[in-house]
Amino acid sequence: MTYILKPIFVLGCLLLLISSRAQTLSSLPPGGDDGYRLWLKYDLIDDVAKRQAYARAAQFIALTGSGPVLRSAAEELQTGLRGLLGKTVPIISSVGSRTGGIVLRAGAPAATPPANREGYQIAADRNTLTISSPSEAGVLYGAFALLRQMQTRQPLDGLSLASSPKVQYRMLNHWDNVDGTIERGYAGGSLWKWYELPERIDPRYRDYARANASLGINGTVINNVNASARFMTAEYLQKVAALAAVFRPYGIRVYLSVYFAAPKTLGKLKTSDPLDPEVRKWWNDKVKEIYQIIPDFGGLLVKANSEGEPGPQDYGRTHADGANMLAEAMKPYDGVVIWRAFVYKADPKADRFRAAHEEFTPLDGQFDPKVIVQVKNGPIDFQPREPFSPLFGSMPKTPLGMEFQLTQEYLGFATHLVYEAPLFKECLDADTYASGKGSTVARVIDGSLHGYRTDGPSRTLMAGVANTGSNLNWTGHPMAQANWYAFGRLAWDHTLSAEAIAREWIGMTLTHNPQATSRIANLMLRSRDIYVDYNTPMGLSRPWTGVHFAPEPWQARSPRPDWTAVYYHRADSVGVGFDRTATGSNALAQYRPEVQQQWNDPETCPLPYLLWFHHVPWTKKLSTGRTLWDELCNRFYTGADSVRWMQQEWAAVKPALDPALHADVAARLVTQHREAIWWRDAWVLYLQTFAKQPIPAPFKKPERTLDDVKQSVETYLLR
Amino acid sequence: MTYILKPIFVLGCLLLLISSRAQTLSSLPPGGDDGYRLWLKYDLIDDVAKRQAYARAAQFIALTGSGPVLRSAAEELQTGLRGLLGKTVPIISSVGSRTGGIVLRAGAPAATPPANREGYQIAADRNTLTISSPSEAGVLYGAFALLRQMQTRQPLDGLSLASSPKVQYRMLNHWDNVDGTIERGYAGGSLWKWYELPERIDPRYRDYARANASLGINGTVINNVNASARFMTAEYLQKVAALAAVFRPYGIRVYLSVYFAAPKTLGKLKTSDPLDPEVRKWWNDKVKEIYQIIPDFGGLLVKANSEGEPGPQDYGRTHADGANMLAEAMKPYDGVVIWRAFVYKADPKADRFRAAHEEFTPLDGQFDPKVIVQVKNGPIDFQPREPFSPLFGSMPKTPLGMEFQLTQEYLGFATHLVYEAPLFKECLDADTYASGKGSTVARVIDGSLHGYRTDGPSRTLMAGVANTGSNLNWTGHPMAQANWYAFGRLAWDHTLSAEAIAREWIGMTLTHNPQATSRIANLMLRSRDIYVDYNTPMGLSRPWTGVHFAPEPWQARSPRPDWTAVYYHRADSVGVGFDRTATGSNALAQYRPEVQQQWNDPETCPLPYLLWFHHVPWTKKLSTGRTLWDELCNRFYTGADSVRWMQQEWAAVKPALDPALHADVAARLVTQHREAIWWRDAWVLYLQTFAKQPIPAPFKKPERTLDDVKQSVETYLLR
Repeated sequence: MTYILKPIFVLGCLLLLISSRAQTLSSLPPGGDDGYRLWLKYDLIDDVAKRQAYARAAQFIALTGSGPVLRSAAEELQTGLRGLLGKTVPIISSVGSRTGGIVLRAGAPAATPPANREGYQIAADRNTLTISSPSEAGVLYGAFALLRQMQTRQPLDGLSLASSPKVQYRMLNHWDNVDGTIERGYAGGSLWKWYELPERIDPRYRDYARANASLGINGTVINNVNASARFMTAEYLQKVAALAAVFRPYGIRVYLSVYFAAPKTLGKLKTSDPLDPEVRKWWNDKVKEIYQIIPDFGGLLVKANSEGEPGPQDYGRTHADGANMLAEAMKPYDGVVIWRAFVYKADPKADRFRAAHEEFTPLDGQFDPKVIVQVKNGPIDFQPREPFSPLFGSMPKTPLGMEFQLTQEYLGFATHLVYEAPLFKECLDADTYASGKGSTVARVIDGSLHGYRTDGPSRTLMAGVANTGSNLNWTGHPMAQANWYAFGRLAWDHTLSAEAIAREWIGMTLTHNPQATSRIANLMLRSRDIYVDYNTPMGLSRPWTGVHFAPEPWQARSPRPDWTAVYYHRADSVGVGFDRTATGSNALAQYRPEVQQQWNDPETCPLPYLLWFHHVPWTKKLSTGRTLWDELCNRFYTGADSVRWMQQEWAAVKPALDPALHADVAARLVTQHREAIWWRDAWVLYLQTFAKQPIPAPFKKPERTLDDVKQSVETYLLR
Repeated sequence: MTYILKPIFVLGCLLLLISSRAQTLSSLPPGGDDGYRLWLKYDLIDDVAKRQAYARAAQFIALTGSGPVLRSAAEELQTGLRGLLGKTVPIISSVGSRTGGIVLRAGAPAATPPANREGYQIAADRNTLTISSPSEAGVLYGAFALLRQMQTRQPLDGLSLASSPKVQYRMLNHWDNVDGTIERGYAGGSLWKWYELPERIDPRYRDYARANASLGINGTVINNVNASARFMTAEYLQKVAALAAVFRPYGIRVYLSVYFAAPKTLGKLKTSDPLDPEVRKWWNDKVKEIYQIIPDFGGLLVKANSEGEPGPQDYGRTHADGANMLAEAMKPYDGVVIWRAFVYKADPKADRFRAAHEEFTPLDGQFDPKVIVQVKNGPIDFQPREPFSPLFGSMPKTPLGMEFQLTQEYLGFATHLVYEAPLFKECLDADTYASGKGSTVARVIDGSLHGYRTDGPSRTLMAGVANTGSNLNWTGHPMAQANWYAFGRLAWDHTLSAEAIAREWIGMTLTHNPQATSRIANLMLRSRDIYVDYNTPMGLSRPWTGVHFAPEPWQARSPRPDWTAVYYHRADSVGVGFDRTATGSNALAQYRPEVQQQWNDPETCPLPYLLWFHHVPWTKKLSTGRTLWDELCNRFYTGADSVRWMQQEWAAVKPALDPALHADVAARLVTQHREAIWWRDAWVLYLQTFAKQPIPAPFKKPERTLDDVKQSVETYLLR
């Protein structure tokens, strides 16, 4: 019966859609707000008084200097003001005695010089707004900050803003392949059209740069860390150079992921041993070639001896040997080597949690000053909730960069609404106790804890694995634009709150209605915990099928033990969870005593982390008063039910939003609810085979059997 | 499930309704014409007199009947007229005594009823334009035809148009995969967002349907012929049903490619043997399920025992056994089974050219009436120029459908401008002599030659392997839109000329300037021969690397002999070309004597086909007065030089075109020229190692060596 009903419903509504839509369409445009403009929407400000106030303060844009980045700053201001104010504000080269405009000044000594060359200051002096910075890029960031003031309807009178980035390398990592696909991409194909480059320049390249610059992102690694050696060929470097030329006026430098075995496969050498003189020469020559083609090339990102990728260990060398070889090649240039710490071994007796710490802490102090070690936020792999990586705080002599994942590999692809800022903040605000209380991960990353100083500038880095793609709206899920936005804002200033960023983004992207803004912000702030509840509550992890879409907690066969689901949750007749205390893998010992204390005792370990560190009996009474089994069921069910709440909240803000955009998100919430129930059912039915207990009241037992769920999951395993 | 799903779909409907209040595409602006509107551009007609004349004839749209397709016709007219005339023409339900408008009439007996239910008639009776057809779809096609008249600025006074499709099944084949990639796609990712369906409906689905309907395309196979069994699951059929619901009001039916081994992998049966009762029952049940979910499902497309795909031969059965099993399952329904004849064996002694004819002609007469055998235009595989497949005219008792390839797998991906209509026409107009002179391939396809009659309607089919993708402009190369357009127009009426279609498309898409139109039309009409000259002149074929991008005529190692390049061109110290006469593979014997006569004698064989059928000595004097070697060099060099001419022609039309669109094509022409020289150099330097002769004057020898070229090609073989 339902099989027949469903298409009829869809048919019915489609007919209505078409008949009502055709009245308003002129040929083939996508309906409504297509999301292409991201947060750089400059719709006319409808509040006339406010518009006029802004217009009085922005009668001209005075530009002293002619650098391309400064030029971008002036043009971005002009573009934004044209939309917001409905008039074209002239760009003038000399301000003379004129007042009532915006003055852009790069390199000029500010009253209080910013902490960082890229910092900016916006000062209202009588009737003139001056945006100043030691660098052109700083002025560009200031220009976007001023536009943000107007986009969020802030007053400009007596405006005094000063801001400096807390991290030097603020970058996106694109896992984009040469064939136009994106590893873990859920928003279409790659933005980079390799077969069309270098001659044809897609207009999106520039829009991509504008969006990043508006957040202060100043670097982009354009190819997958599982790297193709093609990017080291002269032919592809020309294509990369064409992209670099588009990004340059926006203060963005291009980086490349490298294939460590390139000396053999591309250079035709007998080895890629980092201590081999010919290999070192090959890399020296290659890097020289790169800088001849791209003078402001940013640097190299390396995934080595990880998940089958080649690396120095293939030759009995260390990660430091490999990284330092590349650093030597980079020595003559202003570029860095970013070496990923994402490593683990296929050892059934080992605990993957421990791997990176075991391999890298012994190398602390051995890395060349040009090397930054890039560490994922958690010890495993971008799970919905992980404890912070024990590497943070454990390598005081090595600059550690942060790697967050924006693309929703484990967060529901493009159909689950998950605002990631709370996840980022949770990690950044975590205390490593490396130098006593207050030694947060953020202070490791921004260098203030260990005071990283090297031959040159401070090597501080925050990277986000991009969620961008060729879909018209860039990120697949319209709300995922907020994750790109939040990452960029936090890379600039990790002290911003998840809520402040959400409200800012909503104002620039969705609505200016205060009630709707509060409702949407609340929805966003709760979304990640809701996802965790129905997906991997209390420290469960990696229950995914190979494609990381469907639930498969029963998955026990794989070429590698650490690629099964049972390896992680360890469910048995007694209980569930991974004992990482002294009685187990003792991974906890990788943390400082103060941190161990928080998590060591199952009685006091916060429930969100409980099963990360303890194998807990099903019948164990928890601080909530419920047994573990009941608590798990409670979270799976309330998590799934909460998606209904999200739907209701979203329905309530409909009048304040663009209809097409609202409908898009609403439809995805329907999918999210269907899939949340799927996850809930998969987990409770599977865990029930061990716990041997009923689903606690008031929850109804799933309407399908475990076999039903397994069969539905098999769909995603079919060729 | 039932209880949950129904409200979900109701909600989905409401949301879709909301999304229908559309605005126009706004930007972080790509700037200029982004190509999204394809040929359905309805910009205001600037010629006021003409606009007023059209307006006088279109004061209302009278709609009698309420069918969804008829409704689409009225709305498409209204949408088009709103743009062209700048006013909203009302849709009225009864014309009464009013004149001066457009009347849509479906099912009404026309003065001269069209040959086909989908045919239409447009008649100007005094002051009223009546679009009539036996079917609603026919009226929709007539509505687009009327708009086309205005888009190309034709007069409407005394207009009398009557047209009927010559082929019943006019369809696109999408080689789209479940993971969002497209096999041989060069315009981004798949249009179908499987993880978002069925709930979220991308506005592009409808725009895709509108574009196809405007050409008379009435079917679409949405998944790759290398098919995933996922599409046979209930979960995916719901997603397919959601697409079908979007396409239905545009007269387009959905078809699916099937994985022949699905009974085993999905149905868990021991076999997929087409004569096994359980297997037959599984397919019967599966097809029944499909029709419960998609009542107007179009049918199944099968690639079996081809390039490693499973098929009936795995069980010692024939293609007919496999096709007839599926036909039996389809018997209760108005759907067809489309069985591909693209088969060949990995036999070094065999000639792949002969394979399809050898396997299929013995089966003529054994196929169920519901089966159509789909044959690629040529005997090998979509080469830039091939003789027509010898199957055409050789299976009089079996409906043969045509498979053309729109996506430019062997025609330069998205960077070479190749207008394909001349290629299509060359095949359609070729004479098989199956029933004497005039037995063209077109007459095989349209059924007029063998008069296909079956249990029901005439089984005539023309399919185009789609060149669409998620890129904003749909087809990657803006000019490739013309290939989609031309295929659709020829599937409707194969008697249209390539030039007429080009001029029509240019007028609707690029410009109304007469000089520019002639220049661009000429450029398009010459483009395919130019490509053949620098890529594979005189019957050379398949010199491609694995990805089918780079030249690799020297490629001699492969898991299969018929997947090497040398297998095809047979270059040696004596000469080059594949002897397919009696002294060779004798593939020529598969053609009628009159055809053999054209190609049998190297003295008289037209040069474009020479090396398809003959191994010709390098020193052989040709009809051009040049030796083979000199003639080949002449074509490679003039072909590459002709791309320069294309650039000049394109530069000359700049004032008449949208700047962004013009710049896009201009940039791709630069790439095309670079790659044309690459192809030229690869071939002449490689063939020179056999011919041992210099590059003839006035051509200069390539500036690079064969090793240089090989090295540049290796880039595309690197991981």
